[in-house]
Amino acid sequence: MPQGLHASAVPGRDVLLSFAGELADIAAPVATRWFRHPLDIDLKSDKSPVTVADRAVEQAVREAIAARFPAHGILGEEQGRERLDAEVVWVVDPIDGTRSFITGYPLWGTLIAAAVEGVPEVGVIAMHALNERWVGAKGEETRLNGAVCRTRACRDLASARLFTTSPYYFKPDERDAFERLLPLVHTTRFNGDCYNYGLLASGHIDLVVECRLEPFDYCSLVPVVEGAGGVITDWAGQPLGFESDGRVVAAATPELHAAAMRAMGL
Amino acid sequence: MPQGLHASAVPGRDVLLSFAGELADIAAPVATRWFRHPLDIDLKSDKSPVTVADRAVEQAVREAIAARFPAHGILGEEQGRERLDAEVVWVVDPIDGTRSFITGYPLWGTLIAAAVEGVPEVGVIAMHALNERWVGAKGEETRLNGAVCRTRACRDLASARLFTTSPYYFKPDERDAFERLLPLVHTTRFNGDCYNYGLLASGHIDLVVECRLEPFDYCSLVPVVEGAGGVITDWAGQPLGFESDGRVVAAATPELHAAAMRAMGL
Repeated sequence: MPQGLHASAVPGRDVLLSFAGELADIAAPVATRWFRHPLDIDLKSDKSPVTVADRAVEQAVREAIAARFPAHGILGEEQGRERLDAEVVWVVDPIDGTRSFITGYPLWGTLIAAAVEGVPEVGVIAMHALNERWVGAKGEETRLNGAVCRTRACRDLASARLFTTSPYYFKPDERDAFERLLPLVHTTRFNGDCYNYGLLASGHIDLVVECRLEPFDYCSLVPVVEGAGGVITDWAGQPLGFESDGRVVAAATPELHAAAMRAMGL
Repeated sequence: MPQGLHASAVPGRDVLLSFAGELADIAAPVATRWFRHPLDIDLKSDKSPVTVADRAVEQAVREAIAARFPAHGILGEEQGRERLDAEVVWVVDPIDGTRSFITGYPLWGTLIAAAVEGVPEVGVIAMHALNERWVGAKGEETRLNGAVCRTRACRDLASARLFTTSPYYFKPDERDAFERLLPLVHTTRFNGDCYNYGLLASGHIDLVVECRLEPFDYCSLVPVVEGAGGVITDWAGQPLGFESDGRVVAAATPELHAAAMRAMGL
């Protein structure tokens, strides 16, 4: 396809960013309505929980995308993939942190990313219950609730604050790698899902190490973390894309990222 | 001591409850002022972190207690014990969840208990950053922000939502016991500190298993959990008091508590 035609089909980054915010706005009341109310919990094939709230949020977001950008692709957690060969693909996790959602924890959010030619260019982490929303776009400064945020200038493991959602999500060799980090860092804590990457972008924590993430879990995180000065890659140090294996290392600085990779033996 | 004289020295439960709330009100602005602002972190002899915020909150609370009830005892996390032989002892954790506090997580709170003759009779879990406050008193219904709350009628492990702050806080034999529970419950999550017990009292989670807690960590939890219909004991099934060994099992129902104890081999 000629470059001119190609480029003209892709909305500008400001349009994508603005629409990602609209999608988060659409998600907010749908999700919040079910939070801390009794709801049935189904288990998916991977034993992860899903509820009517996840499904209702994704449905509302998909309808809004189809209405505005019918030619764009969609990759959603609950209702699958459409047109992944489109130049723009919206990547949606209606409720990231469903386990927080069903346990009354406010640490869950809606994740929206726009990937252009497979590269996440725009990302939103919308923590509805906490009224905190991180917005990132390639080449722009990440913002939390409108204010520019930056990662902390943490370059050494000894002062790093490390998070992962659960040590039980690792396979044995992954857990060994994670546990090589543990004695070297300042503080280790758990839980958080997407929230951890927002707090990293805001300079409160410095390192997140996870496995078994899916594109809808990590695509939105890339512009948020990178636009705040951080580094986020897979465990081989490669950029995250649709085909990544779901192992993620995010760090406040390139130096800390390298130190964490070395300590984990990667 | 004659019963009449004895009783006259102890303020009524409503007075203790009201004053516990006042202490939480005093703590709120002092703690919140430091949250998500740069602050020095010292490590105590047990390697747990402490900050100027912990010290400033405890100081403000101790001064208020000394002004109002100079004859009462105080057991605080940072500044030690005074008059533990007094009939009423105030038990204070200025910031429970200091690791959350220093990592920008809103899951930290001030814990205030009034123990009468060594028994926790009044307890407050004040989550300042989340504007959620649980208040419990012996023989009364627990309230979250003024509204009565109850544990969930969860009686079997298969539907239970289990929390502990970190699996790395356990000694090996304790961790073995905890990991016997893991495959039997519906959902396991981490982090939370005192917040877990509030969410248990409100029926969002069902089981909390921890070790290495101190009286200032657990005294306030007892009236909150019990007043919501839950059960909270040490790992021998005994009531929690100043001399407990710091191992805690809290459950939504007596049946679930018994099932958890059995599963852990206790």
